[in-house]
Amino acid sequence: QNDEDTFKILIATDIHLGYLEKDAIRGNDTFVTFDEIMKQAVQNEVDFVLLGGDLFHDNKPSRKTMHCCMEVMRKYCMGDRPIIFEILSDQAVNFSHSKFPWVNYLDSNLNISIPVFSVHGNHDDPTGADGLCAIDLLSCAGLINHFGRSRSVEKLEISPVLLQKGNTRIALYGIGSIPDERLYRMFINNQVTMLRPREDEDGWFNLFVIHQNRSKHGATNYIPEQFLDDFLDLVVWGHEHECKIAPVRNEQQLFYVTQPGSSVITSLSPGEAVKKHIGLLRVKGKKMNLQKIPLQTIRQFFIQDVTLSEHPDLFSPEQPNVMLKVMDFCQEKVEEMLEEAERQRLGNSLTPEKPLIRLRVDYSGGFEVFNTMRFSQKFVDRVANPKDILHFIRHREAKDNIKEEGMDFEAILSHPTSEVLQLRVEDLVKEYFQKAEKNVQLSLLTEQGMGKAVQEFVDKEEKDAIEELIKYQLEKTQRYLRERRVEATEEKIDEEIRQFRDSKRNTAEEDEEVQEAIIRAKAHRDRSDSVRDDDLNLSDEPADIAVESDEASTSAPTIRGRGRGSRGTSRRGREDSDSDENVAFLKCSKPKQKLTSLSASKRGSQSQSQSFKGVCFDDEDEFDPFKGSRPQRR
Amino acid sequence: QNDEDTFKILIATDIHLGYLEKDAIRGNDTFVTFDEIMKQAVQNEVDFVLLGGDLFHDNKPSRKTMHCCMEVMRKYCMGDRPIIFEILSDQAVNFSHSKFPWVNYLDSNLNISIPVFSVHGNHDDPTGADGLCAIDLLSCAGLINHFGRSRSVEKLEISPVLLQKGNTRIALYGIGSIPDERLYRMFINNQVTMLRPREDEDGWFNLFVIHQNRSKHGATNYIPEQFLDDFLDLVVWGHEHECKIAPVRNEQQLFYVTQPGSSVITSLSPGEAVKKHIGLLRVKGKKMNLQKIPLQTIRQFFIQDVTLSEHPDLFSPEQPNVMLKVMDFCQEKVEEMLEEAERQRLGNSLTPEKPLIRLRVDYSGGFEVFNTMRFSQKFVDRVANPKDILHFIRHREAKDNIKEEGMDFEAILSHPTSEVLQLRVEDLVKEYFQKAEKNVQLSLLTEQGMGKAVQEFVDKEEKDAIEELIKYQLEKTQRYLRERRVEATEEKIDEEIRQFRDSKRNTAEEDEEVQEAIIRAKAHRDRSDSVRDDDLNLSDEPADIAVESDEASTSAPTIRGRGRGSRGTSRRGREDSDSDENVAFLKCSKPKQKLTSLSASKRGSQSQSQSFKGVCFDDEDEFDPFKGSRPQRR
Repeated sequence: QNDEDTFKILIATDIHLGYLEKDAIRGNDTFVTFDEIMKQAVQNEVDFVLLGGDLFHDNKPSRKTMHCCMEVMRKYCMGDRPIIFEILSDQAVNFSHSKFPWVNYLDSNLNISIPVFSVHGNHDDPTGADGLCAIDLLSCAGLINHFGRSRSVEKLEISPVLLQKGNTRIALYGIGSIPDERLYRMFINNQVTMLRPREDEDGWFNLFVIHQNRSKHGATNYIPEQFLDDFLDLVVWGHEHECKIAPVRNEQQLFYVTQPGSSVITSLSPGEAVKKHIGLLRVKGKKMNLQKIPLQTIRQFFIQDVTLSEHPDLFSPEQPNVMLKVMDFCQEKVEEMLEEAERQRLGNSLTPEKPLIRLRVDYSGGFEVFNTMRFSQKFVDRVANPKDILHFIRHREAKDNIKEEGMDFEAILSHPTSEVLQLRVEDLVKEYFQKAEKNVQLSLLTEQGMGKAVQEFVDKEEKDAIEELIKYQLEKTQRYLRERRVEATEEKIDEEIRQFRDSKRNTAEEDEEVQEAIIRAKAHRDRSDSVRDDDLNLSDEPADIAVESDEASTSAPTIRGRGRGSRGTSRRGREDSDSDENVAFLKCSKPKQKLTSLSASKRGSQSQSQSFKGVCFDDEDEFDPFKGSRPQRR
Repeated sequence: QNDEDTFKILIATDIHLGYLEKDAIRGNDTFVTFDEIMKQAVQNEVDFVLLGGDLFHDNKPSRKTMHCCMEVMRKYCMGDRPIIFEILSDQAVNFSHSKFPWVNYLDSNLNISIPVFSVHGNHDDPTGADGLCAIDLLSCAGLINHFGRSRSVEKLEISPVLLQKGNTRIALYGIGSIPDERLYRMFINNQVTMLRPREDEDGWFNLFVIHQNRSKHGATNYIPEQFLDDFLDLVVWGHEHECKIAPVRNEQQLFYVTQPGSSVITSLSPGEAVKKHIGLLRVKGKKMNLQKIPLQTIRQFFIQDVTLSEHPDLFSPEQPNVMLKVMDFCQEKVEEMLEEAERQRLGNSLTPEKPLIRLRVDYSGGFEVFNTMRFSQKFVDRVANPKDILHFIRHREAKDNIKEEGMDFEAILSHPTSEVLQLRVEDLVKEYFQKAEKNVQLSLLTEQGMGKAVQEFVDKEEKDAIEELIKYQLEKTQRYLRERRVEATEEKIDEEIRQFRDSKRNTAEEDEEVQEAIIRAKAHRDRSDSVRDDDLNLSDEPADIAVESDEASTSAPTIRGRGRGSRGTSRRGREDSDSDENVAFLKCSKPKQKLTSLSASKRGSQSQSQSFKGVCFDDEDEFDPFKGSRPQRR
């Protein structure tokens, strides 16, 4: 079962360490669950842990969060258990952005027992002139292997981490979070290249980690699965918080996609009410099996919708004291959910005591809302979110329409709020510009540019955003003036600058330039879209009542390995993958690498892929050696 | 020379990583010098590094700063060189606040070659509910050993780290930075206890690290050396930035004090113009030798004072175009300093190119200031601080008076600025309170409490300060109301609260309570005093022209060991300090400690100390085996 040719990999994503860390009730949830996840890694004796981004909730995690994270990783990832797989790729390429550009378990000064590999997410992405992100601190401390990093904003060349255990070889690809529009554009422009090993190209299990929108939020604001290379075997999709960890086969591309989902509930929407799991992935040759491991420390979450006008027998808007009756009705519903929570929690000592409860009340049809404060008071000791149990909505018709189209009501409701917030910041900037004498001090800046920079400042605590934008615009203007050979009198210069700027105001060009200014000046990107994405993240599900009932969650589904080229793995003899040699390999800080050369694989056209599939796909190669065995429950 | 009984310890303090990190010229200075310091530790093959606090300049260091720090420490402090000293004290006590309460070099998962021990300073002190500080992140990553931590704000019991190398035994004491007034009070109230090893009490070399004001800034705003226990042998004094590293004997207490000074210039005052060094301390038995190591990467700093009225031959206030002449005069002085800088820098490739220059111009006697902007323009490419080369002052008489009393003029000049800043914050708060309807929303808060909390928020980016103060005041008021058994009508309560608060307004009691509120609510302290201390830090020197001329700085002074009880060290046989055993000891994460029991030593009265000294001090025990040997220059 756990033989010397089988990789065991724990997969998890969107752990969001530090989410609500100040909350008296929920403050420790993310730390407790991270501890549980890493403990699972130890107990299952995995070869490594693979994370799909957003390990941290904040771009600049608090000291406490960073401290907790390091503590857990040092506790579980260090020790004497030997690591029995090799790395064949050029680590200096895989980890080129690191000050210690090699995998942590090969560093002779660190006694790593479980290496962790991670891409960054949109929450913990690189910012600032140095392009550092929160997990780079962990990487510098030797606790994590940060891969899937790219410095270019125009093209991607993804060089896989090549791993070998016994006769099994994995090519691990990753892309750290990039704004969806940009990555979409890169794919469209054929600027994404996946390098493949030249040697025995089809003998590798190709594993890919991505942290982007999977569900469509606008034309180019997501990454269609069809964009991804068809030689891949399994895609681990981060960013989306709903647990859909059972791999789903993409029938066009013939790869599987697993979406582990977040390990903490960051919004009270139906997607987060789905029972949360991490995965134990086994890979042997080209075959794989993914075992779901239910997380025990997740706070329970119950969500229910009621539509007042659907209960004419109980009350009508004209009734006297209808508000009290509605309140009693809602209270009853909450009590029901609390009872259900209590019942389900029985016997599971790890589940936090107070559940999250959300009752969405559609009060259209003449009803009025009541004071939720008093309502909350009744549940203050029994619910983890007493302040926002109730959510009043009044768009019954709209909601129904949306339901039919498979969209989420909550997403639309939440949208205006964030836009309002953004407008407010932009308004402030506009007001400032109107007051300032435009042509004196601030002639170089456009309102829009300033607005974006301020937004950056607010969203990411990115203190340099404003300064960097100013620098960029200054340089651009100087270049323009130099090109125009403007005479150096102040009046002339002022006039030229005004013309230069006004010619761009409110044009698409300005928009693009501001975008590029922020991208280039910071060598990185603004996250304003992604931040909002997050609220919308779980919104592609119909707004059904999603009370947890996934009792079958512990039964590991049988994953059909695709097996293309799997027989090829036997071509490698035992002599160069001897596990003794692997162990000896462990403590060599300048590893004697068996570098495998790579060749480019550009995403081909659809027809090419299809024909390729036609040749290689072999349905008979189904393989699941571990079916039905689930020893990890305790 | 470097025998098996001699401890070699690198001492340094106030490295202030991240100071001016955004500055285009000086931004990397602290990182470069930290690299130099740690490289010196490696090249001198020291047993450990001892830091005196303020490793970081900011309480919440930027990601870049933390990353740079970890990079340097991982690079220099890890490796295969064996560590050949033992730790005899109970590490769980020494590092009780740590999640990994043992010295890093005994952790079997970390291959430490040079352990670093540090107390925290006032810049990087613990804050927040968790009481974590910046170096705790390093400690959690296994890169530093943070000692001298106390949780109590009323009393201190200092349990030393007991170290043994061959026959030499060191008891290492430390106190992380505490507001001077508080520590002063603790000493006065006899609440500071230093524990001493019971076994062979006088056989230890007693080394103490402190990070407080050494020079007097007000009655209780410093720590007199006389407060410190007289059994100490050497005190390493951090916080003061002027390098006075040559140990000075305190004739009353009969210990030596070394003040290494900062390794970066954080204020353009004379104390910082003194050549900067770190120390290589050798301890053998009770004898010590301290070798000064000049730092090569320090940016040069020249400071000069001119008094215009002392040059009647050159110009008088009535002269036409006097301002241009004064400007020429100043320019000449700056040129002189630049030439001197260039001359001194020759042949030292590590010294940064552009020096810091400060010309203090006393323009009293009818002269006028001129535009420093234009003046700066002339030196913009040659000076590291073009914007603030000139400093106009006009208090000739005051200055002379102060000089006589040994106080610093600069300090007084800088004082108003910070007070103005503070007043501005307080004014904002007052204004807010005046606008708010006092008895409705904000009746629980005093202006002063709010002001302090806001100050905390501003100074330390301590986001919880305001919230915590409110919580504290709320609880206090609730307690008061409970005790008074006030009837629960809103009017009654409002009235009582108003009385409660007004009774305290502007009283000393209020002041104390606010103080305690912040201390207790945060379990820690406000730094408002310490922050200002820092500007005053170097101010105890007469404001002389302090152009560097310490050419003799490389000649190591002979330090006379006091030797009290030093012969006692030979009582320990070789069998339990065998260096082979020590090496084997290295990789045992649960060390088989030879715990040495401790007994309390409360600071006795002066007369007691004197008599004790009389008995024990033996002047014949002078020892300096390494006199004149300085191989570390390269």
